[in-house]
Amino acid sequence: MEKRSENLTDLNQIGEFGLIDLITKDFKIVNDSTELSIGDDAAVLNYKNQKIIVTTDMLVEGVHFDLSYFPLKHLGYKAVISSISDICAMCGTTKQITVSIAVSNRFKLESIQELYSGIKYACNRYNVDLIGGDTTSSLTGLVISVSAIGCVSKSNYVTRSGSKPNDLIVVSGSLGGAYLGLQVLEREKQVFLVNSNSKPDLSKYKYVVERQLKPEAKSEIVEFFLENKIRPSSMIDISDGLSSEIIHLCKKSGNGCVIYEEKIPISKETVDTCEEFKLEASTIALSGGEDYELLFTIDSKYLKNIEQHKEFSVIGYITKESNTNLITKDGKTTPISSMGWKSF
Amino acid sequence: MEKRSENLTDLNQIGEFGLIDLITKDFKIVNDSTELSIGDDAAVLNYKNQKIIVTTDMLVEGVHFDLSYFPLKHLGYKAVISSISDICAMCGTTKQITVSIAVSNRFKLESIQELYSGIKYACNRYNVDLIGGDTTSSLTGLVISVSAIGCVSKSNYVTRSGSKPNDLIVVSGSLGGAYLGLQVLEREKQVFLVNSNSKPDLSKYKYVVERQLKPEAKSEIVEFFLENKIRPSSMIDISDGLSSEIIHLCKKSGNGCVIYEEKIPISKETVDTCEEFKLEASTIALSGGEDYELLFTIDSKYLKNIEQHKEFSVIGYITKESNTNLITKDGKTTPISSMGWKSF
Repeated sequence: MEKRSENLTDLNQIGEFGLIDLITKDFKIVNDSTELSIGDDAAVLNYKNQKIIVTTDMLVEGVHFDLSYFPLKHLGYKAVISSISDICAMCGTTKQITVSIAVSNRFKLESIQELYSGIKYACNRYNVDLIGGDTTSSLTGLVISVSAIGCVSKSNYVTRSGSKPNDLIVVSGSLGGAYLGLQVLEREKQVFLVNSNSKPDLSKYKYVVERQLKPEAKSEIVEFFLENKIRPSSMIDISDGLSSEIIHLCKKSGNGCVIYEEKIPISKETVDTCEEFKLEASTIALSGGEDYELLFTIDSKYLKNIEQHKEFSVIGYITKESNTNLITKDGKTTPISSMGWKSF
Repeated sequence: MEKRSENLTDLNQIGEFGLIDLITKDFKIVNDSTELSIGDDAAVLNYKNQKIIVTTDMLVEGVHFDLSYFPLKHLGYKAVISSISDICAMCGTTKQITVSIAVSNRFKLESIQELYSGIKYACNRYNVDLIGGDTTSSLTGLVISVSAIGCVSKSNYVTRSGSKPNDLIVVSGSLGGAYLGLQVLEREKQVFLVNSNSKPDLSKYKYVVERQLKPEAKSEIVEFFLENKIRPSSMIDISDGLSSEIIHLCKKSGNGCVIYEEKIPISKETVDTCEEFKLEASTIALSGGEDYELLFTIDSKYLKNIEQHKEFSVIGYITKESNTNLITKDGKTTPISSMGWKSF
């Protein structure tokens, strides 16, 4: 019953965002309780003035993770973190999750328990309740789908749109580590495939590997905003890469930006590993995904609050013109292009 | 990183419910907003006295559906119906859904559009908003995960527990049709595999095939309850089969039941097709899943209301003792055994 012919369109011709646009454009919102729908980090529901945030993610073995080096406990943890991070990006607090899994018969009970021990660890760490899900078989591999539900404080949620010219562009933590961790793990896998007696010493790469295998959601930053009554004008989490996310923010607000390469936060461990892999650290920081840091824009009156927070780096500012530009370390201006994660 | 050894436990040794019990038993609820968690048709959240119902389902190609005879538009429709039915079983009204899909590169854009045309049709039919989701690639096949969010009226939600001895046991519509529709489609597939020129004439099986390919959620029955201020004491939707669901209801309330075989509603079309397939219609009605009818228990004071509704059949009553018994057409008493859908 599928359509198969030479005249049909491959999904990689239109890409994930093109696909989403095409399949969702004819859906009309009919319920008053739907306040914000498709197109942000999460949707916002308004039930009798109680605003609720909902997001969902799907992870597929062989596409999003490789179980030959990704421990199941870490995978369970990361699957939950990824959804919590989306709620953080709305300035919300995650309260509940549902987890559905499809597993082939190669998976044993003990493996599934490992996966759920990581899910439980994340629930404990972030005070989230597992409230439901589905468990079923698959013909091959493992698929995990996590939906997260959160609430918003009185100060309201923050979307991807809302930035104004001269707003500061701020990023939390440091970038590029998760991508490099993946490169290290992939390299060790190749070594192992050639020589199965090899015992990788990953101690040198502890930081970057941990960024890949055990990322954290930035719920403390959301709490900092709420406690200090600071409200970003727009926000997104960095799952696909800084360049891709900054373009999202600018497009949504119909403006542009200037980013200073020298201001992009990159850890020493990331720089060292980049040198070993002969990679340009700034490129990795701009294009590498899965760091789950927060990228936000904020009125410059908050500069002092931002500077006082050790996690924050001001990396540029919003411009009225729609160009998204990078000022390189040698002072040249170059357009930022999106090289984020491609689903198809 | 998976566990692989002879000493490990195959998932089919413990079954779906055993697995769910094992992996969820150590999760503790920490948020006040979590009112009802794992173990019913859906979870219930309470945000500032606004109760919200959440459920999620995962459908896997080759496990839950066969695209050689299941049209993608129907699949999209059924995936949504299945989640709406869970919300109906709580006496709730579905307001929003998220849909995540993983698709292999054998799927073309036009096929995905077909799938979403069915999703849209269901959204329109049931006044539901599509508010988010995820679209990603898979190595093989199609996986669909639907989460649904609904609200509850003042009269509150109905769980699987709450029945009392002498409560009537009532089922909506008729049973067994969806299972037989599947048998018809499977048979035609086998004929087609032998002779690809065969053109199946399914007009004779229109009813049962439609029960399989285009089931409906019983939202009108929920509306009937609300309008008439009738509240079932417990309720479940029949996705796995009548015998399996009645055992769920009795176990949850710590009681038993008597069901009369002759009272089980079976359509003429289902009986006719059963005869052709040399199947016992009552067995199919008890064990066949996917009818998405509602099974509920209700105080006998509502008997008149129930009898006046053409969709309802009173099929038995709740007993204090925990035995679940069937009175056969020839007056014999036989225990009801669960032969519902097995995930592993």
